[in-house]
Amino acid sequence: MYSGVYPIAPTTFDERGALDLESQRRVIDFLVDADVDGICILANYSEQFALADDERDLLTRTILDHVADRVPVIVATSHYSARVAAARSRRAREMGAAMVMLMPPYHGATIRPDTEGVVAFYRTVADAIDIPIVIQDAPVSGVTLSPALLARLIQEIDRVSLVKVEVAGTAAKLRALIALAGPPLEGPFDGEEGITLFADLDAGATGTMPSAMIPDVLGRVVRLYLQGRRDEATALYEEYLLLINYENRQCGLLATKALMKEGGIIASEAARPPTPPLHPATRAGLVELARRRDPLVLRWGR
Amino acid sequence: MYSGVYPIAPTTFDERGALDLESQRRVIDFLVDADVDGICILANYSEQFALADDERDLLTRTILDHVADRVPVIVATSHYSARVAAARSRRAREMGAAMVMLMPPYHGATIRPDTEGVVAFYRTVADAIDIPIVIQDAPVSGVTLSPALLARLIQEIDRVSLVKVEVAGTAAKLRALIALAGPPLEGPFDGEEGITLFADLDAGATGTMPSAMIPDVLGRVVRLYLQGRRDEATALYEEYLLLINYENRQCGLLATKALMKEGGIIASEAARPPTPPLHPATRAGLVELARRRDPLVLRWGR
Repeated sequence: MYSGVYPIAPTTFDERGALDLESQRRVIDFLVDADVDGICILANYSEQFALADDERDLLTRTILDHVADRVPVIVATSHYSARVAAARSRRAREMGAAMVMLMPPYHGATIRPDTEGVVAFYRTVADAIDIPIVIQDAPVSGVTLSPALLARLIQEIDRVSLVKVEVAGTAAKLRALIALAGPPLEGPFDGEEGITLFADLDAGATGTMPSAMIPDVLGRVVRLYLQGRRDEATALYEEYLLLINYENRQCGLLATKALMKEGGIIASEAARPPTPPLHPATRAGLVELARRRDPLVLRWGR
Repeated sequence: MYSGVYPIAPTTFDERGALDLESQRRVIDFLVDADVDGICILANYSEQFALADDERDLLTRTILDHVADRVPVIVATSHYSARVAAARSRRAREMGAAMVMLMPPYHGATIRPDTEGVVAFYRTVADAIDIPIVIQDAPVSGVTLSPALLARLIQEIDRVSLVKVEVAGTAAKLRALIALAGPPLEGPFDGEEGITLFADLDAGATGTMPSAMIPDVLGRVVRLYLQGRRDEATALYEEYLLLINYENRQCGLLATKALMKEGGIIASEAARPPTPPLHPATRAGLVELARRRDPLVLRWGR
């Protein structure tokens, strides 16, 4: 089984919106030093939806070169077209990705395939590569993946072997999925900044794909839990829960960048427009909560 | 005022999903021969959401080279990121686009900016080019653009001067928009295969951006109407309305491709997966309705 913490690396921009590869490399070094089990890039918290294709390629190559096999890297390669998603996945594999992660196909508010279209999509991607595929089950796709459909994808398609669930009722869904899918499911993970991690671990999650804000802490929570030290895991998680709650409900993807800027890891916390910046009061609230615990993200770059 | 018919050219693929540029050029020649006022490429009916960036570039260059100024070409350049959308628009302009068309920014089911984000988005794109911008107001974006917001965009941003409305209540929205925006609105257009064209012309639409199925007919409808020959325009529109209805409600973007294949214009009618093919019975129903009127799309390639 895959287990532990696989945070989503933010994509770093300068104030004018251009890629900042120097900050990007520091994000990666911070994550490796935070003792993560792997790193996921080009996901939604990486603002993948704000990138051009050539920027995706440049980021993948830059990050994989810089990681240099210190930890496994999961590259998110979602696209509506099965052909384009397969090509993206093949390129990520060639550059050294350990896994790829894909949402089911979607576009905008109205364009979605039917169930058979979803199955054929993952089959096309799987046929193009020889590394594991993570299904990302997230609200942004607007596609409902039932536990039965997820189990079918895992059982019918060889390389589909991990699932990141981050929807309403994640714990219940993971529990149902684990029962239905059996051993071919090698990584029942959650996501969403770890906001449901307590219930998800109890439901059988072996790993989490949170933001890159406190990956050191969330990694310890998962490892303690899997060692049977549930009380210690719970206490540690509770200690950081108000910060996680504030990230999840008030800040979204901007939280990690704000604390990385505050901690001197990255040069700019700008997201690409039209994603708006944090309101200064929201940002101040986040920093205040973080300082109470002084996590690695505030200390590493100093 | 801009007026007439500006159909959306389908993107042509072979049976394996690769671009078929030979068929693509024949689509363009058909449209020019259909006496269109302009051609729009890379829109949703062009399956823009199923293309990689390098394919968008190749298609834009190939089509603009092939059109060779015979008609103006509108290139759709939507992207969530204002920076990427501006870069796409600049490239389209450099290749010879007469206008660009953009939906407001969106991603998936959940990611949308607020009103100020929408305004800033169009401003960033406008600052990058010196050709007119068409705002595309379509359900796929999942963004609600009120007549007041559309009027504000048109009045505040110099190059924003046309709007393609294709939402529930298009006629009423066009009427409200025309009253609010005044002369800076140089092209109140509708879309959606022309399914609401009758009411939209009465509401003040001066042009339509339908599919490429019967652009010769819809062009004549608009021109007759604008010449004050409303009864003749209505009679001609009614003659084709069952076909338009069947396209709009039963077939979507696959209708044009099916009839272009049937008429020998293109080699394959395949859409890119996961967009499913037409059911054979649906396709047969479409072809039967088209044959009753024997439109140019069935005759041009023979």
